Amino acid sequence: MSFDPATLRYDARGLIPAIAQDAESGEVLMMAWMNADAVARTLQTGRVTYWSRSRQEFWVKGETSGHVQDLVEMRIDCDRDALLLLVRQTGPACHTARRSCFYTALRDGAEVEIMAPES
Amino acid sequence: MSFDPATLRYDARGLIPAIAQDAESGEVLMMAWMNADAVARTLQTGRVTYWSRSRQEFWVKGETSGHVQDLVEMRIDCDRDALLLLVRQTGPACHTARRSCFYTALRDGAEVEIMAPES
Repeated sequence: MSFDPATLRYDARGLIPAIAQDAESGEVLMMAWMNADAVARTLQTGRVTYWSRSRQEFWVKGETSGHVQDLVEMRIDCDRDALLLLVRQTGPACHTARRSCFYTALRDGAEVEIMAPES
Repeated sequence: MSFDPATLRYDARGLIPAIAQDAESGEVLMMAWMNADAVARTLQTGRVTYWSRSRQEFWVKGETSGHVQDLVEMRIDCDRDALLLLVRQTGPACHTARRSCFYTALRDGAEVEIMAPES
């Protein structure tokens, strides 16, 4: 691969935010973080791999749950400090079993749950 | 407003990432940052207001360019540490005059510009 993940702009922790979007529906599924190695692994394997800030380890999305994200295309923003991942999502993206992590909407000043867990 | 922006989880700088998505097309337009005051201002005014990390000041999107973002709905993720903004975007969202900041795709290991500046 000729693209060098080191050319992206990482924060002080060496991380870059990555937005996962369903490649077909356009739904925004989640936001997590990658370091340069996670970017490289994701591109090499086609399987979206984040960096877990809490566990301080690679997090191959869906490795234990089976709810994997297959990379369709990675995009870079104008400042090179954010990534957009177009993915094919197997099962729900959220650990709460909802399709997307963004299942809470603010409506009329109150939090409303707009998505139920999948069975 | 009964929702309290202080209930969100901010990073060490007091910031939370905010993803702007076109409410109609579903296109992801940009990612920027908000602090609690920017969240409150956005909800109060309906005009998306970020916090500029470089200028260390409120950044009412489009205030100088006219390329404003009108808030349709704010959503919160499961960890309460990321926001999704459904917006009506006037003009291009990117300062490069492109519709979206994510105009660079990685294809066959190379960076490809997939979006031209709007005239």
